[in-house]
Amino acid sequence: MKEITAYSREELTALEAKLASEYDAWKEKGLALNMARGKPAAAQLDLSNEMLSNGLASYKTEDGLDARNYGVLDGIPECKRLFGELLGIPTDQIIIGGNSSLNMMYDMMARLCLFGTQGEKPWKAWEFEGKPVKFLCPSPGYDRHFTICEALGIEMIPVKLLEDGPDMDEVERLAASDERIKGIWCVPLHSNPQGVCYSDQVVDRLASMKTAAADFRIFWDNAYGVHHIYEEVALKDILQACKEAGNENRVYYFFSTSKITFPGAGIALMASGAGNIAEVKKAMNAQTIGHDKLNQLRHVQYFKNAEGVRKHMKDLAAELRPKFDMVLSKLEEHLGGTGLMTWSSPKGGYFVSVDTIPGCAKETVRLAKEAGVTLTGAGATYPYGKDPQDSNIRIAPSFPVPEELAQAMDLFCLCVKLAGVRKLLEK
Amino acid sequence: MKEITAYSREELTALEAKLASEYDAWKEKGLALNMARGKPAAAQLDLSNEMLSNGLASYKTEDGLDARNYGVLDGIPECKRLFGELLGIPTDQIIIGGNSSLNMMYDMMARLCLFGTQGEKPWKAWEFEGKPVKFLCPSPGYDRHFTICEALGIEMIPVKLLEDGPDMDEVERLAASDERIKGIWCVPLHSNPQGVCYSDQVVDRLASMKTAAADFRIFWDNAYGVHHIYEEVALKDILQACKEAGNENRVYYFFSTSKITFPGAGIALMASGAGNIAEVKKAMNAQTIGHDKLNQLRHVQYFKNAEGVRKHMKDLAAELRPKFDMVLSKLEEHLGGTGLMTWSSPKGGYFVSVDTIPGCAKETVRLAKEAGVTLTGAGATYPYGKDPQDSNIRIAPSFPVPEELAQAMDLFCLCVKLAGVRKLLEK
Repeated sequence: MKEITAYSREELTALEAKLASEYDAWKEKGLALNMARGKPAAAQLDLSNEMLSNGLASYKTEDGLDARNYGVLDGIPECKRLFGELLGIPTDQIIIGGNSSLNMMYDMMARLCLFGTQGEKPWKAWEFEGKPVKFLCPSPGYDRHFTICEALGIEMIPVKLLEDGPDMDEVERLAASDERIKGIWCVPLHSNPQGVCYSDQVVDRLASMKTAAADFRIFWDNAYGVHHIYEEVALKDILQACKEAGNENRVYYFFSTSKITFPGAGIALMASGAGNIAEVKKAMNAQTIGHDKLNQLRHVQYFKNAEGVRKHMKDLAAELRPKFDMVLSKLEEHLGGTGLMTWSSPKGGYFVSVDTIPGCAKETVRLAKEAGVTLTGAGATYPYGKDPQDSNIRIAPSFPVPEELAQAMDLFCLCVKLAGVRKLLEK
Repeated sequence: MKEITAYSREELTALEAKLASEYDAWKEKGLALNMARGKPAAAQLDLSNEMLSNGLASYKTEDGLDARNYGVLDGIPECKRLFGELLGIPTDQIIIGGNSSLNMMYDMMARLCLFGTQGEKPWKAWEFEGKPVKFLCPSPGYDRHFTICEALGIEMIPVKLLEDGPDMDEVERLAASDERIKGIWCVPLHSNPQGVCYSDQVVDRLASMKTAAADFRIFWDNAYGVHHIYEEVALKDILQACKEAGNENRVYYFFSTSKITFPGAGIALMASGAGNIAEVKKAMNAQTIGHDKLNQLRHVQYFKNAEGVRKHMKDLAAELRPKFDMVLSKLEEHLGGTGLMTWSSPKGGYFVSVDTIPGCAKETVRLAKEAGVTLTGAGATYPYGKDPQDSNIRIAPSFPVPEELAQAMDLFCLCVKLAGVRKLLEK
């Protein structure tokens, strides 16, 4: 089969007419589907309903505290143990937060701006001196990470995300060259959006590289740390790797159950080296008396132990796998061999990342929207919303029911073709 | 009866010996009671247990959203309506937060430091220029408010708290005189610790006074807004008063159910003028996707409406009233007419504020602690922990069961006498 990208002008013109008429037919259907965000489907949420309907078996923590009352800044011991066991992190390096790891990341970044860390200058002080600090942003990446930087006045430097993690040659070169480069965002497992899993070597290089800034920090958002769908992937322990490299306080590790139990009613946590943990607890002490211990208990009573979480994740994967199967098979069916699109083959996580030929992402998303399918905005996966190639689109298959997902993908693939063919005709 | 303060040296010496021997007898008992914080007793928390044991009747919000899933930055509509009705605040001026109004206050203050407000210079920029901003702190007051200022590098200026609110002559003079004075902390009803309720006149003066700073802000922590124990006290609507005075964005209003349902598992909210609310929502958008909507639903399903909250508060008051009665009667019984102590007569709230003769608060707290009763640290009710008179002590009667409270108060009064008599002997 000849790739569409190799079509003659005549062939393209004929194909455009055919696709345009198909597209008009789709518009008639009046679809109204939303695949903009990585939202769990109702069927996924139902898997955790027992946690809500059963009520709490006891209000006491294992050390005898009444979880209904004030107290416990950094989380009840059994909750720390549950997640410590799940993630292989010593409990004394863990702080349990509220319902949102994003909120913990923002708060951490805000503290660095306000106070600095380990005796270094507050990052806002750099900005007020006209020399804003900078962050490395492996791209495509998670738009809400980029929003945090933008809100706090931290300049973003895009770095390529390769098959096994960020382009480490580039990361090492940049980190060593500029003391205003203060850190890097990482989603190390089943990354948002491509599903990249960091190799051991990348983890080691991040942990041990030379940085011009003494307060260089890795924001390690392990959002999909147990979200294996097709294949269980191991991730090297970065806390340990940093410690061994003599950079114990280089990494802030984040995790949450937002996509395990309930988005917005889950449990978030952070972990770091001893010096950072002491610093964070001291700062938190001015911010709150403590987070929701009843919800911590609810999670512990429901899961019991790490094995309970892992079993639950298998059930979740069984819900998600058919949707990923469908997205990938629709892409193959409609776009395989056309030359108009490439896509990731994630082993887990929440997304499939696709790339149009240059200059077609925005138009594809616009066409889909006009026919009733809302996708993540084109460009959202890049700092400042600027995809230099205008080619990356994030597909979030989790929310729609299967029949709707099938429709949405058929339409999406049509839009990719239509936008692609029109782009080729411009030449 | 002759006041002890009028005793001769011989009388004082004899009394000291008698009190010291009584005190030694108390030490033998090995008490271990904690009245340090305003923690609800288990019996108070039990009143809300249904909210936990019953499970949720439905996961849908009234506008059809699945509250288990992502979304809704500023709170579900029925939750805004519940508290709007309770507090007399239009719902579009309300933002529902997480589990802690303290956290909302800290975050608000942190945003002012990082970003400023309504186009004015960020407060941290003042600090980095060597001219830190300042806050007025009616004292005695709430130690955690002072901790927020201290943590964020905001200088505190104590202002006297009178019978009907802060000393407004002083507040007006200071606010008008210095553009670095950026705001004031207020607990306007049943204040922590004295139970002061602000008069309408004070509210009006705060709302309309001239301030040198365009970004002068009132942090209005209405923590005890519905916590009437002896008498229902009305509070003038400061949001409306500010609006009428042309200072719509002068006040940030805070409230929570921490002392209504569960500390740490309640619902917090803030309210302000339209300009501030828009600004806060924009900033929050970088911080979180939304707070715990299931807990919002839990509260709405349990209370149903404002009347439900008011009824619940009557039940809570019935739990608390005997404890306040006991504190006040023990003070009268042991210390009335001695000249060694004065105390507040709160109409509601969570505390009784007492004053020793100058220079005795620290020693009283030390003596009580040594005999097994932990009180709030002396000085905690003043900025930087510095009570200029060393006389104020906050009594928190809520947590102990009645028998323990009786014991604790007997011992406390003895310690007041012992410290007082020894101080008199120093002269």
